[in-house]
Amino acid sequence: MNSFGRIFRITIFGESHGPCVGVSIDGCPAGLSLNETDFITDIERRKGGTKGTTPRREEDLPIFKTGLFNGKTTGAPITILFENNNTRSSDYEKQRDFPRPGHADFTAHEKFGGFEDYRGSGHFSGRLTVALVGAGVIAKKLLGQIKVESTIVEIGGETDLDKGLQKAIDAKDSIGGIIECRVANLPSKLGEPFFDPVESLISHAVFAIPAVRGIEFGTGFAAAKMFGSKHNDAIADEKGTTVTNHAGGVVGGISNGNELVFRIAIKPTSSTPQIQHSLNWETGQPEDFSVKGRHDLCIALRVPVILEAVTATVLADLMMLEQKIARIL
Amino acid sequence: MNSFGRIFRITIFGESHGPCVGVSIDGCPAGLSLNETDFITDIERRKGGTKGTTPRREEDLPIFKTGLFNGKTTGAPITILFENNNTRSSDYEKQRDFPRPGHADFTAHEKFGGFEDYRGSGHFSGRLTVALVGAGVIAKKLLGQIKVESTIVEIGGETDLDKGLQKAIDAKDSIGGIIECRVANLPSKLGEPFFDPVESLISHAVFAIPAVRGIEFGTGFAAAKMFGSKHNDAIADEKGTTVTNHAGGVVGGISNGNELVFRIAIKPTSSTPQIQHSLNWETGQPEDFSVKGRHDLCIALRVPVILEAVTATVLADLMMLEQKIARIL
Amino acid sequence: MNSFGRIFRITIFGESHGPCVGVSIDGCPAGLSLNETDFITDIERRKGGTKGTTPRREEDLPIFKTGLFNGKTTGAPITILFENNNTRSSDYEKQRDFPRPGHADFTAHEKFGGFEDYRGSGHFSGRLTVALVGAGVIAKKLLGQIKVESTIVEIGGETDLDKGLQKAIDAKDSIGGIIECRVANLPSKLGEPFFDPVESLISHAVFAIPAVRGIEFGTGFAAAKMFGSKHNDAIADEKGTTVTNHAGGVVGGISNGNELVFRIAIKPTSSTPQIQHSLNWETGQPEDFSVKGRHDLCIALRVPVILEAVTATVLADLMMLEQKIARIL
Amino acid sequence: MNSFGRIFRITIFGESHGPCVGVSIDGCPAGLSLNETDFITDIERRKGGTKGTTPRREEDLPIFKTGLFNGKTTGAPITILFENNNTRSSDYEKQRDFPRPGHADFTAHEKFGGFEDYRGSGHFSGRLTVALVGAGVIAKKLLGQIKVESTIVEIGGETDLDKGLQKAIDAKDSIGGIIECRVANLPSKLGEPFFDPVESLISHAVFAIPAVRGIEFGTGFAAAKMFGSKHNDAIADEKGTTVTNHAGGVVGGISNGNELVFRIAIKPTSSTPQIQHSLNWETGQPEDFSVKGRHDLCIALRVPVILEAVTATVLADLMMLEQKIARIL
Repeated sequence: MNSFGRIFRITIFGESHGPCVGVSIDGCPAGLSLNETDFITDIERRKGGTKGTTPRREEDLPIFKTGLFNGKTTGAPITILFENNNTRSSDYEKQRDFPRPGHADFTAHEKFGGFEDYRGSGHFSGRLTVALVGAGVIAKKLLGQIKVESTIVEIGGETDLDKGLQKAIDAKDSIGGIIECRVANLPSKLGEPFFDPVESLISHAVFAIPAVRGIEFGTGFAAAKMFGSKHNDAIADEKGTTVTNHAGGVVGGISNGNELVFRIAIKPTSSTPQIQHSLNWETGQPEDFSVKGRHDLCIALRVPVILEAVTATVLADLMMLEQKIARIL
Repeated sequence: MNSFGRIFRITIFGESHGPCVGVSIDGCPAGLSLNETDFITDIERRKGGTKGTTPRREEDLPIFKTGLFNGKTTGAPITILFENNNTRSSDYEKQRDFPRPGHADFTAHEKFGGFEDYRGSGHFSGRLTVALVGAGVIAKKLLGQIKVESTIVEIGGETDLDKGLQKAIDAKDSIGGIIECRVANLPSKLGEPFFDPVESLISHAVFAIPAVRGIEFGTGFAAAKMFGSKHNDAIADEKGTTVTNHAGGVVGGISNGNELVFRIAIKPTSSTPQIQHSLNWETGQPEDFSVKGRHDLCIALRVPVILEAVTATVLADLMMLEQKIARIL
Repeated sequence: MNSFGRIFRITIFGESHGPCVGVSIDGCPAGLSLNETDFITDIERRKGGTKGTTPRREEDLPIFKTGLFNGKTTGAPITILFENNNTRSSDYEKQRDFPRPGHADFTAHEKFGGFEDYRGSGHFSGRLTVALVGAGVIAKKLLGQIKVESTIVEIGGETDLDKGLQKAIDAKDSIGGIIECRVANLPSKLGEPFFDPVESLISHAVFAIPAVRGIEFGTGFAAAKMFGSKHNDAIADEKGTTVTNHAGGVVGGISNGNELVFRIAIKPTSSTPQIQHSLNWETGQPEDFSVKGRHDLCIALRVPVILEAVTATVLADLMMLEQKIARIL
Repeated sequence: MNSFGRIFRITIFGESHGPCVGVSIDGCPAGLSLNETDFITDIERRKGGTKGTTPRREEDLPIFKTGLFNGKTTGAPITILFENNNTRSSDYEKQRDFPRPGHADFTAHEKFGGFEDYRGSGHFSGRLTVALVGAGVIAKKLLGQIKVESTIVEIGGETDLDKGLQKAIDAKDSIGGIIECRVANLPSKLGEPFFDPVESLISHAVFAIPAVRGIEFGTGFAAAKMFGSKHNDAIADEKGTTVTNHAGGVVGGISNGNELVFRIAIKPTSSTPQIQHSLNWETGQPEDFSVKGRHDLCIALRVPVILEAVTATVLADLMMLEQKIARIL
């Protein structure tokens, strides 16, 4: 339930305010060079601290515990920890009385009977995505020339992202956004009928990212309004290159060799600065309250690298299943 | 790869123009009454033959091969076959030279090296969804008072469905649509962090339905344009009832006891009556051609019951994992 | 639970006295030639009818339902049914009052609350092994020059098998035996640490065969009495050929390129002709009774081909995981 | 591949001479009290340092990284590390030229192409069993009144264990042994047809323990020499109590409510003090050499608590699948 993947398989653990979050990666080929430097760019991209993101800053140095030897992967599980040093749990103690709307406070309490670590959303925290990013770094290295790139295409309904963010700052409210992911140089043949098409596996992994509310491939929801003659991508040559790419690179659940394209919707950060009127567990009645803690005004800003990570993870697994990545590099 | 589910687990097999399609259902509790009559309504809902759907008609009587004894499930795998009697493969032989745009012809050929059964899309055919519907009937019975209902909310961009369909008939072209699924009386606590939230499992299963291009939960893509203070669902009481339901019944990946709501986008049927200009495998050049065979003008019309089926299947599995459905009824 | 394997994955279904037993095989490479003739030898080897085996005879023609096209596998699931034509359920009705000692009657009743199909042991019957044999035929074809061969090495404590069998006939009692399996030409590298060593996967599959009570690899239990200097297999060359083979071809859970050797213990057939004193469910008291139905005096006689089948199935899966069998042949 | 279990699921990682070994436990119910003290007894039982075991001593304090809050499990993954502080890798550097007979040196090198961490057998080391023991402590707590107990029944062919050990000391050679495991108060109904009988799951997990060469349930291999009338366990009452227990508590793969009994064979420690004549990788020829490092003369002495651990892990998982352990305690 905290693992994902068939061959290249990741297992996630940790809480926002515990000692660390981490990931153990099984099935990674032996012989892949790996060091701390490989992680810097993506870890930095995920960090908060810029306009619209949380002031909580973690060093987030990957601590390699297992699976590396002489700077290379060994074929055994690679375990990486990321310490939580910069926690301020007291913020959360204060508002324990309120299951914060939009957060997992209420559902986690139902699910785990009050035994859940509620500090900073515990195991449900966006903090765990640093472990996804760590796994993604390795997956990307495995993918080589297959390039996974995500960009924000809309913030708060605006394609001019500064404008969208300013709207939120002005309104003293949180906002969401839309992220697009494109994968170039993806070979055909990836994906497995009937239950493991590319879209199924990617969407499965994507909805593990907190705050994702929708996903669409290629033309997506707009396809529902098109005629078939317009939506169909004519095939131009024997390699399968298509004239258009409404399919987003996947037909019948199998990659067709064209660019993989999909978009996800991120809801506005649940921790809005606005006052909310919601249940007080102590009194059993709704009351006004405001969320404490350090939060992103727009969590979507941090999602692109996370989206790349889960996408790369899925594709690395499919590449191994299709025997396009060897067991020893 | 052709199986899905952790405890209540379905395995799909078959081709459009082979002897049959079928499903074997593992992990179903013992003691559930089951007979042919239970299947009639949903099987009929899925059938073609009305305006906008294929004239191919199958009886689609479920043939119970295993797992039933004295009219009840035994706890052993339930295997159900649906025969293919009304096939007209000659249509497909004629156009084997063209990998039909939008169909899996090209990707299946890449994936399986030309050994795939290409007749009527073979294992990639929408025909296999009758097996999903069969599994769904059983899952729905298990769910009891939990009611899964899907409806078409848009056809060809129109909420007036007749109007949308007429547009397609007039244009002699195929169209898509949007289907909404709502689940009433769903208990809280379903879904498993980190990788098996409700949305992950439903979307995984949903993208196995041919022609699905997107999925969104609750407010979905529109949430990306909202402020947090508007999107958050205030909790009204200790049962977790929320004033609004922008979350669509899932927070932190766990059901919260409110109605589960999501929508999927269905692309226009790939087999449009229009002439298409695409690759001829024989000549290696694009040429004009038109798709033979009997097809739906709007496949979306047949999807609601299929969507209910996969949703019920996922929920039955989660209910068993949460021990809310017993192993013996 | 009724499926096994990671890539080459089999799903079993059926009951002894239902319409059929069957298997659906997922993940089989595309392009493997397959026809009814391929199955004859192994199906015949499994059949009863010779001295010491049940007089129940089934034709056991494999009925291919899915996954084949033009005589070759397509990459889609291969579903094979074996009909049950020669059933005599009335035998079982008579003795329903007695949960037969050694049989699953009692445990199946506990497990499935009385809803189990008890006729001829239902889903627990040795009848299902015909489906294993069917899967094994395909796995063996995939293995090519890797030869899996099982032989009976002991019957009723005798290495002279006729003598052992005669002992049972004279005593009017059932007997067990020991089967040895040897796999020649097995490459090194198969098996996956930590939880999927070759021995783990083979033993997992082997204990699914009814009546198996033990398994040992290489020198097995006798190794526990040896000194290390005698048990260790000295390595003779760079290919890993060993001077002795006490390890039975697996070290550290990974095949080492030497012959794979293991043995299994089969208990005496539970349906002995002798009178037994055991519980009568009706009266709640132990009583004398004798088992009706047609049974093997020594079920071990039929096990070699079944053992080969599950072994080949495991090895085919490991070969695919190690990318030594391609996805398209 | 480094994970095992369906609901209560453990993931193992680490190497003998890396920073640590560890385990992440998924699916553990919330609300289980857990602290360091719970681990002391079993960790101590596993340690070396007594006659016949390695002089390498580790503190082996469990370091809880995730999944605990206020002294109780939270329902999120529980990650426990055990540091490797007392390593002496230089021993292993010296003999890197020789793939040690009986050890995984050769097969690990084949499998991982020379990228494996070979120090002290790396990921193949018995050192990882401390993580199994850690998981076992938690599983045992979950099992409550179900008592899992293992004892050594034979060392070096002797039931007088001191005598067996002295034989080895006198011969300056390593020896093996036989361990028996008994589980009292086990309920009926555990185990799942067709591929997950109790024996399949236990043997799968057991063969992950280094040095195991065989397993037998109940009367085991001796059953192959018995008549059916003697081997069958007459049922004495409606609870399923049997007069004898040749079946070892499992019939048809399902626990029958009697004591679960099985035995495993442990080979003599591969690192014998004796001189061995085996391949030198440098020269490509066999040569005399002796194994360096600190080793157990009889690894079997340390196995009982490890065997209990994997058995408890399997049973906890089956108990959850059978809904006999709740998701919240």
